[in-house]
Amino acid sequence: MTSPTTGRATRTPRRLPGTPADAGRLSPAGVATEPGTARIAVDLLGGDDAPAVVVDGALRAVRADPHLHLLLVGPTEVAGALIHALDPAERARVTVRPARTAVDMADELVTARADSTVRAAVAAVHSGQADALVSAGSTGATVAAAALGLGRWPEVRRPALAAVLPAVSGPVVLLDVGGSLEPSPATLARHAVLGAAYASAAHGVVAPRVGLLSVGTEPGKGDRARRLTDPVLSTVTLPAGARYVGLVEGYNVCVGTRADVVVTDGFTGNVLLKAVEGAYAMAGGPPPGGGAPRAAALLGVGGTVVVCHGAARPDDISSGIALAAHLWRRDATDRVAALLAGHRTDRTTDTEVRTS
Amino acid sequence: MTSPTTGRATRTPRRLPGTPADAGRLSPAGVATEPGTARIAVDLLGGDDAPAVVVDGALRAVRADPHLHLLLVGPTEVAGALIHALDPAERARVTVRPARTAVDMADELVTARADSTVRAAVAAVHSGQADALVSAGSTGATVAAAALGLGRWPEVRRPALAAVLPAVSGPVVLLDVGGSLEPSPATLARHAVLGAAYASAAHGVVAPRVGLLSVGTEPGKGDRARRLTDPVLSTVTLPAGARYVGLVEGYNVCVGTRADVVVTDGFTGNVLLKAVEGAYAMAGGPPPGGGAPRAAALLGVGGTVVVCHGAARPDDISSGIALAAHLWRRDATDRVAALLAGHRTDRTTDTEVRTS
Repeated sequence: MTSPTTGRATRTPRRLPGTPADAGRLSPAGVATEPGTARIAVDLLGGDDAPAVVVDGALRAVRADPHLHLLLVGPTEVAGALIHALDPAERARVTVRPARTAVDMADELVTARADSTVRAAVAAVHSGQADALVSAGSTGATVAAAALGLGRWPEVRRPALAAVLPAVSGPVVLLDVGGSLEPSPATLARHAVLGAAYASAAHGVVAPRVGLLSVGTEPGKGDRARRLTDPVLSTVTLPAGARYVGLVEGYNVCVGTRADVVVTDGFTGNVLLKAVEGAYAMAGGPPPGGGAPRAAALLGVGGTVVVCHGAARPDDISSGIALAAHLWRRDATDRVAALLAGHRTDRTTDTEVRTS
Repeated sequence: MTSPTTGRATRTPRRLPGTPADAGRLSPAGVATEPGTARIAVDLLGGDDAPAVVVDGALRAVRADPHLHLLLVGPTEVAGALIHALDPAERARVTVRPARTAVDMADELVTARADSTVRAAVAAVHSGQADALVSAGSTGATVAAAALGLGRWPEVRRPALAAVLPAVSGPVVLLDVGGSLEPSPATLARHAVLGAAYASAAHGVVAPRVGLLSVGTEPGKGDRARRLTDPVLSTVTLPAGARYVGLVEGYNVCVGTRADVVVTDGFTGNVLLKAVEGAYAMAGGPPPGGGAPRAAALLGVGGTVVVCHGAARPDDISSGIALAAHLWRRDATDRVAALLAGHRTDRTTDTEVRTS
């Protein structure tokens, strides 16, 4: 993560060969209308059961969405097997970027090798060959590769993985869910800003309520990290009309009472997300509207990146690809960046965060 | 928590007035046969909605279990209203210990006042007037009062709150769920021992598998606290034929794959438990066998203590009372203590834990 901040990625007019020139055309405001073409780079070698599960998930995604184009990043023989299973019209929406090296899950804190599939997928987004990327490989390696290849946004020391859970009155954005296991209060404050912007831009939440996850809602509840972070969050000015509502509990994350955006460290968020997944499995299935997501958006890097659960099943991969396409079509990454750029002009807040 | 370790509480032959002399009689091995008389002290002023919810829950408990005796600890007028609602046969199983002061939830880290209901309930257990106590008041105050009044077991620096979740192949014991928010690796190692003994003695788990909660199952996954604790746990000798199985994830806590006892810090455990509760609420109800428990056993003090969720409803209070009665009837506290006493003779292990 030694990359300098390079600002947000700009959209590129380049299109895949065979794509009609007007597919996915941008409106004057720079917002693509759904459904528009979305070109998603898929890391064929990422995930515990790659490539088989990734190939299966990619197949489902291509067949479910006629405006989806995939850039398969991995060994040509793996990509070839996938393409072979498609009919000719579907094949026209699939291209290949050869790469042969998977990231070793044991080395997730080490930057992935330059010839790895995840680095190649990041490069495809950086060069404009793809609009977004999806990987079920090592979270740490994906975050590091994205930060290195796409740059981090200003004042984002650690990008955040944001998951969206369905709740009673709308979605709840939970971040971080595994990108940054031991964030500082300043990082959590930045994640609160990112999460509020993301809830608004990507998921249509109006004036998001932002909470800090703890073991009770009374002020002062929680461990040392929470007691340090709560006063910092209470002084941060949030974008998109968001406001900080104080401490919330695990129950609130699932039910959506109290907060629309819940900020926590990546350790707690990851444990919570997987526990909720287990609870829904025990209860016989998720509630209407979806269960615990197995794909999360990476916020704070200059491009659209979706990370899937390492134990992803084909449905999870196709959901991750659909999320990436959704984010691209909503112009979410640029809109979040714009909200943050507007927010950055509030120098008072920045100083408060920096000096905390 | 300045109390010296006073060892485990011993059972007392004293009975409530009106209790048949042979009710709850102990077998020669010191184990009461279910159903036997269980005398539970109930903190009438503990909980967000006390005393109304506690009174309602206590009523349900008395009516559901004909061998249950309650010692109501609180203002006499509150206890009187409860007693008034009972029929004469039920009234014979209820007595009162007057106490007027509730614990302020904002002061949970401060030891409760000597005239508080929780201190009086602890005193009732210590003197043998009651077999166990139940409180939905401040967790910190209850833990402190229990440690002070009943003593801590040897080498238990911080008592653990243990919750039991239903899983596919049997119960899963999760600890800590809020007693100790930032435990050291040595405390987590002691909690692993307590949890294994509790799973065996109180819930009939044979040769429990003990896991450490983290964000992945590969060695090295997790934050600094987990990376420090994993090697400590791998060298601890566990009681009851238990063995350490390494890192487990949130999913495993709910489903029971990988581990029967899951060790974590009280912050993460509390967040997880409440999130699972929310997930079951979203899914339309808990799975067969019960959902997320809203009562937990306090392990490591010289008596049987059950802590209920501060936001407990009447059903939660009656479940907590039933858990306390179950633990007393199974002789769980003494049997856990005996397993630990046998375990303590393994000096090699103790040294390893202490020096970690």
